[in-house]
Amino acid sequence: MVQPLQILEKSLNKKISVILKDNRVLVGTLVGYDDYMNMVLEDTEETQGEQVRRVGTVVLRGNNVVTIAPQ
Amino acid sequence: MVQPLQILEKSLNKKISVILKDNRVLVGTLVGYDDYMNMVLEDTEETQGEQVRRVGTVVLRGNNVVTIAPQ
Amino acid sequence: MVQPLQILEKSLNKKISVILKDNRVLVGTLVGYDDYMNMVLEDTEETQGEQVRRVGTVVLRGNNVVTIAPQ
Amino acid sequence: MVQPLQILEKSLNKKISVILKDNRVLVGTLVGYDDYMNMVLEDTEETQGEQVRRVGTVVLRGNNVVTIAPQ
Amino acid sequence: MVQPLQILEKSLNKKISVILKDNRVLVGTLVGYDDYMNMVLEDTEETQGEQVRRVGTVVLRGNNVVTIAPQ
Amino acid sequence: MVQPLQILEKSLNKKISVILKDNRVLVGTLVGYDDYMNMVLEDTEETQGEQVRRVGTVVLRGNNVVTIAPQ
Amino acid sequence: MVQPLQILEKSLNKKISVILKDNRVLVGTLVGYDDYMNMVLEDTEETQGEQVRRVGTVVLRGNNVVTIAPQ
Repeated sequence: MVQPLQILEKSLNKKISVILKDNRVLVGTLVGYDDYMNMVLEDTEETQGEQVRRVGTVVLRGNNVVTIAPQ
Repeated sequence: MVQPLQILEKSLNKKISVILKDNRVLVGTLVGYDDYMNMVLEDTEETQGEQVRRVGTVVLRGNNVVTIAPQ
Repeated sequence: MVQPLQILEKSLNKKISVILKDNRVLVGTLVGYDDYMNMVLEDTEETQGEQVRRVGTVVLRGNNVVTIAPQ
Repeated sequence: MVQPLQILEKSLNKKISVILKDNRVLVGTLVGYDDYMNMVLEDTEETQGEQVRRVGTVVLRGNNVVTIAPQ
Repeated sequence: MVQPLQILEKSLNKKISVILKDNRVLVGTLVGYDDYMNMVLEDTEETQGEQVRRVGTVVLRGNNVVTIAPQ
Repeated sequence: MVQPLQILEKSLNKKISVILKDNRVLVGTLVGYDDYMNMVLEDTEETQGEQVRRVGTVVLRGNNVVTIAPQ
Repeated sequence: MVQPLQILEKSLNKKISVILKDNRVLVGTLVGYDDYMNMVLEDTEETQGEQVRRVGTVVLRGNNVVTIAPQ
């Protein structure tokens, strides 16, 4: 069985796509995380509706995360 | 009596359908989960309203899950 | 005094009706539950507004449950 | 001083009116509760807007309760 | 420094006004509370928009409370 | 480094402005707080949209607070 | 691996941009934080829709934070 946190471990330094509760989508390189699924992304691109913008390094609060998909 | 987590245990490597709080439906193969009902799905198809898209491997946060149905 | 979980215990293998926070109603046979009121229903019928559909076995997250009524 | 749970204790086998977060009102006989204010009502009548219906025995999740009023 | 619970202590048997998350306002005599700010009000008057009604004794769940003001 | 609670400590008996989740703004003199950022304000003025009113002493639940700004 | 809190540590006395659940954006100098990601910002500028205003020192509750980006 694969633990959810193992997917994060295997995704380190790789691109992931994160959907937040407010429907924003963040795509960036996962460089860190903790047990609460707080995450650090680098070279992040944020999409909200039609709007896309580069936001560089981002700390995400785990409790706002809906899904995480390795790219 | 069947413990809820036993249903997940029995569903490992089988298709399940998960409804999230934001009404998205994810159908994929359950390959892992933890005590908080965080889950890992593979070959996942996401449906939101009329829109369907393939999202591959997905980590789901348990606190966004409403219902889980083995397929 | 009747503990709330005793009602679940007495409802095992009987039909119950569960109302969820998103207003969906699930009617099915209770085959299991845990201390968080996560539940397992079988032969479940889901009603949302006018729409009814059979969903078979379902795991419900307790934190989405509003009320549980033995049928 | 009156502890909130003492009001529940004193209301056992008496009619109470419970307002839920989704604005439904349940009026029924309190036959049990636990420390989380999960409750068991009997002979319950549910009012939502103009709509009233009898729902018999109901288990209420405490985290959906806004107010409890002895009748 | 005044601890928030001390204000409740000092307000025992006095009128307080409580604003709930759903915008209802309850004005009544505080006769009890616990560490979670669950409260018991007596001779309570509930205001929701233009609508005022007497609700007598009420148990309030602390997690629905926004502000408490001694009258 | 400044701990968030130190700002509250330094703000005792001074005016602060608190924004709540429901967009109300409370401006008053901070006379107490606890570890959950529950607070006691005195001589409080509440602003909601265009509407301003004096509410005197107020106990605020920390879990409804978004931001706190010393004035 | 970079822990999320390390990004905050490295951002001390530097400008960060914080997005809150209510869509407000706060840009200010991070001068403190705690384990719950409660933060203290100085020289803060708040943007809500088209509206920008200076709010000076601000204490942010961690549970309202969605993302944190070093500038």
